[in-house]
This record gives sequence, structure tokens and C-alpha cells, in this order.
Amino acid sequence: MSTSNRLLIIGGVAAGASCAARARRLDEHAEIIMIERGPDVSFANCGLPYYVGGEISDRAALAVQTPGSLKSLLNLDVRTGCEAVKIDRAGKRVEVKYLADGRSEWISYDKLMLSPGASPLRPALPGINDGRVFTLRNLQDMDRIVAATEEGMRAVVIGAGFIGIEMAEQLRHKGLSVELVELQTQIFPQLDSPMTALLESELRRHNIGITLGDGVARFEAQENHLRCHLNSGKVLDADLVILSIGVRPDTELARDAGLELGPRGHIVVNDFMQTSDPSIYAAGDAVQTRDRVIDSSVNVPMGGPANRQGRVAADHIFMADKARPYPGSLGTAIVRGFEVAAGITGWSEKRLQAAGKPYATVTVNDQHHAGYYPGAKPLSFKILWEPDSGRVLGAQATGFEGIDKRLDVMATAILGGMTIDDLCHLELAYAPPFGSAKDVINLAGFTACNRRDGLVRHITELPTDPQVQIVDVRPQPLAEAFPAPANVINIPFPTLRANLAKLDRTRPVLTVCAFGKMSYFAARLLIQEGFDVKSFSGGLKANVDPRSPAKMPTP
Amino acid sequence: MSTSNRLLIIGGVAAGASCAARARRLDEHAEIIMIERGPDVSFANCGLPYYVGGEISDRAALAVQTPGSLKSLLNLDVRTGCEAVKIDRAGKRVEVKYLADGRSEWISYDKLMLSPGASPLRPALPGINDGRVFTLRNLQDMDRIVAATEEGMRAVVIGAGFIGIEMAEQLRHKGLSVELVELQTQIFPQLDSPMTALLESELRRHNIGITLGDGVARFEAQENHLRCHLNSGKVLDADLVILSIGVRPDTELARDAGLELGPRGHIVVNDFMQTSDPSIYAAGDAVQTRDRVIDSSVNVPMGGPANRQGRVAADHIFMADKARPYPGSLGTAIVRGFEVAAGITGWSEKRLQAAGKPYATVTVNDQHHAGYYPGAKPLSFKILWEPDSGRVLGAQATGFEGIDKRLDVMATAILGGMTIDDLCHLELAYAPPFGSAKDVINLAGFTACNRRDGLVRHITELPTDPQVQIVDVRPQPLAEAFPAPANVINIPFPTLRANLAKLDRTRPVLTVCAFGKMSYFAARLLIQEGFDVKSFSGGLKANVDPRSPAKMPTP
Repeated sequence: MSTSNRLLIIGGVAAGASCAARARRLDEHAEIIMIERGPDVSFANCGLPYYVGGEISDRAALAVQTPGSLKSLLNLDVRTGCEAVKIDRAGKRVEVKYLADGRSEWISYDKLMLSPGASPLRPALPGINDGRVFTLRNLQDMDRIVAATEEGMRAVVIGAGFIGIEMAEQLRHKGLSVELVELQTQIFPQLDSPMTALLESELRRHNIGITLGDGVARFEAQENHLRCHLNSGKVLDADLVILSIGVRPDTELARDAGLELGPRGHIVVNDFMQTSDPSIYAAGDAVQTRDRVIDSSVNVPMGGPANRQGRVAADHIFMADKARPYPGSLGTAIVRGFEVAAGITGWSEKRLQAAGKPYATVTVNDQHHAGYYPGAKPLSFKILWEPDSGRVLGAQATGFEGIDKRLDVMATAILGGMTIDDLCHLELAYAPPFGSAKDVINLAGFTACNRRDGLVRHITELPTDPQVQIVDVRPQPLAEAFPAPANVINIPFPTLRANLAKLDRTRPVLTVCAFGKMSYFAARLLIQEGFDVKSFSGGLKANVDPRSPAKMPTP
Repeated sequence: MSTSNRLLIIGGVAAGASCAARARRLDEHAEIIMIERGPDVSFANCGLPYYVGGEISDRAALAVQTPGSLKSLLNLDVRTGCEAVKIDRAGKRVEVKYLADGRSEWISYDKLMLSPGASPLRPALPGINDGRVFTLRNLQDMDRIVAATEEGMRAVVIGAGFIGIEMAEQLRHKGLSVELVELQTQIFPQLDSPMTALLESELRRHNIGITLGDGVARFEAQENHLRCHLNSGKVLDADLVILSIGVRPDTELARDAGLELGPRGHIVVNDFMQTSDPSIYAAGDAVQTRDRVIDSSVNVPMGGPANRQGRVAADHIFMADKARPYPGSLGTAIVRGFEVAAGITGWSEKRLQAAGKPYATVTVNDQHHAGYYPGAKPLSFKILWEPDSGRVLGAQATGFEGIDKRLDVMATAILGGMTIDDLCHLELAYAPPFGSAKDVINLAGFTACNRRDGLVRHITELPTDPQVQIVDVRPQPLAEAFPAPANVINIPFPTLRANLAKLDRTRPVLTVCAFGKMSYFAARLLIQEGFDVKSFSGGLKANVDPRSPAKMPTP
């Protein structure tokens, strides 16, 4: 089965380890050498924040495999502390340097796999080299952060992507006070901003300070702490700083070897993970691949794609006749902050806007299982689709339970090329503890089709035009307890038919309610009575935390 | 928009209520009359067992809508306690009888919707009319059962489908002793039997007695209780009996009207839910529809399909130009028994066998999220596919957490016509609390493709042929603590390469391990060393409850 005697793998974490394991299963007799700059291979990057916070207490559990276990399981030649310095493509060899003794040697290869990963960004800001400014990529970074943190300390986390959010949560969990700073005007910037509101309020509820639309300009060492100066002039005092503002691919080696790179420095690969040199493969955080939704290239620096890309490369090397292409990445992501989860799959509204792609979108609010069964929790669910075809382009969800489930269904629906009509008729598992006869995904499909079929027009922001009659169709007690934020007429929906005379037929109407359902009913009624009507999409309570604020002590 | 003045709906629960609600939104001015034999409309059938057990304590929550609320929300003419007696198709009218006073009248219709539902089977067994033999269809049945049950009583539940299992769990929850009897040789007969083992052991762990492969022959009234005589001669004493052996469609009215019925008495409908009379629609438990996996007809008596069918009918009646067809049913089902869930979507192995359809299947065992994150629980996952095309035909899952999620993904994958190759590359949401970099669904895809590509041959039962060398590749302590059930050689996988001489190259080899992963690795190794090898699919610990037996008191 072997078409190759020696496979040399540079980088032994997700993509590299997965490639090695698959390669060994396909070819028991191939020579497989794995070199890794750090001391660890195949560790669980995604678990690092949870060890910092103490949720994961067994450090050994994070080292999924060790050089020794890879030797005994896969008969690999694993060389840690070994850095690739140069690729000689013509000679099919790589110069490596052993960090322990500085010794160098050339290792030849028949096939080369580049899985170097990506490094946390560390911009050249004044003071950034202070020992109290940490990034988190590997177990050593994690150990340094653990050693530097104590209950009661002040942490500043710069960057509110998923690592920043997880670190903020976990440092809070460990009893530090935490300030989270994000350059964009929302946390978890992959999502569209309304879908992050609940997560943001959950972080604040746990006394995490959040500064949005601001970045760090410089760090100033004080006698006993570090002062973070933000672009706005705001100052945050810290005992330690976590820098989690993104990553850049570790592709100098590939660049120096003349391999084709993309506009942001990622290695360009074909569908079988071959670089511009067919003897050299690449996979993981350092590559750009096909986007699975819209014809374009994308880098998704996540564990799932990395693992599967490594596997595809091994298939192509060792059983090319049966290898199947890597179909591209979707960018599914989820983050948990205390009791709230939020996530995305496919394209966001702002990404579609930036790319100038046509789209339509609805957001619906519902409960995660049948409302009559105890413990139903609210969730908010957004879909985006291509107007002409109805094909789903993306989805986002946030809430307390079942967020991963909805994202997984939508990731599957997108990969299946499904449309908003298909979403209506997904037959999902329903028993009261698990779901609803009409799941929120079905509801989103219904709502999208209603919009497509011209049954309703939605707006997402309350109008300022005084000509618009805003009709709040919630029950009177609810409307009084939580008044709508503008001049509104409260006509509870069940009384609407009897009160049409209260409305001026010459002026436009906007219907509003708590979650967007009754306002839709009201819009349908009024449209057929001859009014010019829009419905307030998602309702007034969308993305509002239904719980009372927590009484968490400030450390 | 209206093409119809009066819509008459017979049966006001799931399909009927959903049809009425959609109809009103599409036509504010149509006359909509809903008649219902019982006192309730639009109640939550699926919640009934949970009220019996006390998990749902608010009875009003089960009455999702009342005749009054439907009047005020939807301007419906709701007539409860009103039975349809006869359909005069030529005259487009229905004779109804008011149960309160025996009065009859004819109600004419432009369009008629039949949503009569299905009745629990009550075979004509001796003693079955004893007042202590209950079925569960509606709130009144539920109230009667609640009134008849007290802690410490003995209940016998006949039929271990999902209602039987839920009732057994809930009666146990209420403190009754429970015996569950099932005619087939497994509980939850929709599933293939190995996938119900964990659920069965969970019910037994909670001291529910289970009798399989046996049915009830007759009931014999004793002085203070009821004696259930089973076909086998076994006798179970009961203070009450729940009969949950299935349902039959309530289609006498349709039959008498000459509408086309299927072989098991279900109303035949087209993709827009029209019966053989285009003015008469039907939806819900009483109809048969297109099967979404294999070209055939199917009856899926569940709330989800009923709701969506009612909606499709309303669309076709009130906006035929924009109506989309009902794409058929899949038969997604899930049941919870205490901490364990089990479910299915699409076709089972035994159903494929009975239909003579070619299929292939694998079962994989994994954890519901990353193993290094605390709280990971085992789950077992089975897929079935069409050998030629690789198209997925069905899936089953059982375990403690995330069962509904995997079923929902698979239901979506099946509807999208996806293949085992597609399953490999589903990009599901992954953060340690929610999933794994390679989800069990990806693993099932990998395993299926390995089988398809000839990388491994699986068997699912240990061979009795003494010629076969069974190699247990688990670590020695595990192999000694939980010995494999036959003559085996324990060669832990990491030592296998060094111990090839212990195996006879002239005899076939079977590799076994705990979950089927290491045995696959070992099979790949040995195949390439020239052995004739199969791997024991799923492993020895598949479907074994990982927890110690509970110490639950016997009531």
C-alpha cells in the first residue's frame, strides 16, 4: 500500500498527530518521523483555559499522547525540542536543530507534512515584554499562568474572542478580578452583535468588567503591578495580563521554501492538502482551505478541521486511489461563559455585508424544550440565507441549554446545501425533556418562508418616525411592567379584532411583543384588514437575560 | 387570498390545531369551525406521563390552548364534546352529534380537515374491561390514572414502546413498584436490540421488573387486585395496569365516507395532505405519508409531523400557489428512562432486513464530550447506510448526555441525502464542555469509510470456532479485571509489534478491546503483517452501564 518510505511531520499537535496516526494505520512499515519544537505532542489546546481555572484538575489528561505513547502505539520516531530550520525542496530534506544541544542535521523525506500551527499575536507595544504579559498556546504557557495567578489578583484579558472569554471566565472562577478589553464594539466578534448580548450580560453578572471598542496602547510597569493604558486613555491596573487578540500562522519556513502563501500568510493547499510542492502537504491552523458556504478561501484555526485535514493528507499519501478530498471549512465555533453559551456556524451578517453578498436573515426566540416541561430555558436563534435560492448561509445561537445542538444541526444543514424550506421540515427528536414538537429551528424556517412568501415584513429597530403607530400586543400587565421604549398603544392581541377603530388606517403600523410571535399574528391580522404593517422581529425581550442579577462577591 | 369560505376541522389536538392557527394567519376572514369529541383541544399529549409522575405539576400547562383561548386568539368556532358521525361528500357536509344533549346537525364545509388521531389498542382479552386497566390518550385518561395511583401500589405496564417506558419511569418516580411487559424480545422495539441494552439495565437498576418476549393473555380480578396472566403462564399481580401496546388510527369516519385508506387503515394523502377527495384533507396520527428515506409509505404517529402536516394543509387550502409539499416523515423518536436516553432516526437494521433492502452498519462507542474535560459520559452510536451510494439510511444512539443532539444531526444528514463520507467532515461545534474535535458522528463516518474502503472487516459476535485466535489488546489489568468471555490471548496493543511470534499465521485472528478502537488499530497492524484478521465491532464494553448498580429501595 505504501507509495512512500519516509514521512516527515513538522509539528506534532492536532493536524500532525492525526496525520501520523492515520499514516501508521495505512502503512505499518512506513518510516514516520515527527519533529516538534516544544516538549509536548498531541496535547489538548482547547482544554488549557480550564486547567488554569481549575475545572480540569488533572494536567496529565491534557497531554493526550506523549512521545513515549506515540512510540509504543504508532511506532513513530518522535523528536521533541527539535526545530525545523530550512526546507531543501530540491533535495527533499529538512534541516533541523535540536534545542537541547544546538546540534543540527538534515533529515530527508519522501513526503513532508507541515503542521506548524499558529502563534498568539504579540504586537510591538511598549512594555509588552514585561513578564506579567502572558499568551496561551501550550502547556508551558499554561503552567506559567497558573504559577502567576492567585485568588484576589487583578487580571486584564486583552481580546474577547473565545480564548479571551474562556480565560476571563476561568480566571474569575479561580477568584481573580477580571477586566476584559476588546477592540471591536462587541465580545466574541465572529458573531453578529445582538447575539452576544446575553453572553456579555452573563460575564458582567459575574463581575467581569468589559471595555469595548478599545485596545491596549502600552503597558507601564509599576512597583508591584502593571498598568495597561488603553487607546482611549482609560487605565486598568493588573497583576497579570492575558493577551488573546488572535493568532498568526507559523509559516516562515514555508515562505522561505517558496511555497505559495495566501494574502494573510497561510499556506495554500489543494483539496488533498498538498501545497504548491506536491511532495509537501500542510494542515491545521497554518493553512487556508476552501470555504464550504461561499466560493472563497478561509482559515479556520480550530481543532476539528486540523484533525480531519491531517487525516486527509495521510489518505492521499498512503492510499491516493481511495482518498477523498477535504471538502473545506465552515467555521463552526462555540463558547461558554458561565451558564450561557453562544456560537456560530457558516457566515455572519457582517461578513456577508463586507463581502457584498446578498442575504436575508431572521432571529427567533423560543425555549430549548417544551415549555410545559420544567426547566425550559430561553434561547435566541438567527439564520441567514441566500434570497434567490433559499440556501442557508449561516446560523447563530445563544442561550442556556441546547446551543451546541442547534449549531450542529445547522452545520449539517449547511453542508447538505439545505434551504429555509428544508428547515421547516427537519424532523428532530422530540420528547418533553429534549425538544419541542416545533423546534426553534423549524420556527426559524417558518419565519424565513413567511418573509420570503411576503406574509410579513420585519424590522429590527424601533422607528423614530412619529407617524408610525407602534402597537404593543402583549398582555396589559406585562406591557406595564416592562414598557416598550417608545410611544406605544397597548392593545393585547386577543382584543385586537375588537379595537381596530383605535388605529389610524392612513398611518403605518409596527406591531411589537415580547418574543416576536404575537406581533407576527397581529401583523397578519392587520395586513388583511388593510393596514400597512411591519412586525418587530424577535420581540422586545430578545437577548435579555431572564434571570435576576447574581449576587456574586467581588474578590 | 381566500379560496374557501368555511374550513371545518374534525379533531382539535396537534394537526387540527396547527391547521387552524395557520389558516387564520393566512385568512383573517375565513370561517373556521373546529369540532372535538373530547373536552380539550390542543393539549400536550407528550407531557401526560410526566404529570402522572409529578415531574410536571401544573396541569394547566398541559392544556396549551383552551376553546376560549382559541376563540380569542384565532377567532375560531370551537365545539368540544362534539362528534363527527358522517361525511356527506357529495353535499360537502358533516353530520355532528353534541354529546351533552344528543342533538345532531349537519355542518357544511368548503374544505374539510380530518385530524382524528389514533386510539390506544385494547384487544378483546378476558378481563380487559376491568376498571383497573388504563390506557393513556388524553387529559381525562391521565386524571383517571392519577386518581388510581398511590405510592406503594403495584403497577404492570404492558408494552415497552416509548409511552410504556415513560409510564414505567414515572410510576416508579411516584413510588409504585412497576413491572414492564413487552411482547418483543427487547424494550423500545423501534430500535435494534443492542442499542436498548443500556436503557433496559437503567430501568432494572431502578427496580423496574422487565419481562420480554411475553404478552398478556387475560386479566383476572381478585378481591383487592388484578392478576395479569401472561402468554408464558407467568402471573403478575397488579393494583393497576397501563396498556401501551400501540395505537390504531381513528379512521372509521373516513372509511365510511369512501376515502382511500392504506393497508393498516391509515388515510392516504398526497404531498399536500389531500385525501382521495380533493376537498378533504387529513393530517396527524391517522394518515400515512411518504417515507423520507426509502420510497414507501409510512405512519409516524408523533407530534412533530402532525403539527407540520396541519400547517401544510392550511397552506394548500389558503395559498395554493405558494404551498410547498410535505416532504414525508422520517420517524425520529427518543425516550428517556431515568438518566439514560435512547433514540432513532430513519430506518433500523431489522426494518431494512424485513424490507429486503441492502445496507451496511457500524456501531461506535465514545464519550459525549472531550474526555479530558470533567463529566464526559459514554455513548453508543450506530449508523446504517446504503452500500452502493454510501447514503445514510438511519441512526441510533444511546447514552447519558447528548443523545438528542446526535439524533438531530443525523435526522438532518438523512434529509440532506448525505453519505458516510459527508459524516466524516461534519464540522460540529467543539469546545471542551460541548463536544470533541472528532465527534462520535465523525468517528462513525471514519469507521464506515474504513469498512467501505476495505481497511477492516468487522464482526459483531464472538466466534465459537476454536480455530480463531482471539487477541484481547486491552491493557493487562483491564483484561484481567473484566475478562473476555472466551479463550483469549491478552497482548496489550503497545506490545503487539514485539509479540507477533505468539500468533499462528495459519489461523484467523479476531482482535477485541473495550470500545473497538484499539482492536481496529491492532487489526490494521496484523493485516499488514499478513494475518487474516477481523475486528470486534464496538468492543466488549459497548452498551455496558459504566456505573455501579444503584442502591434504590424497593417500594
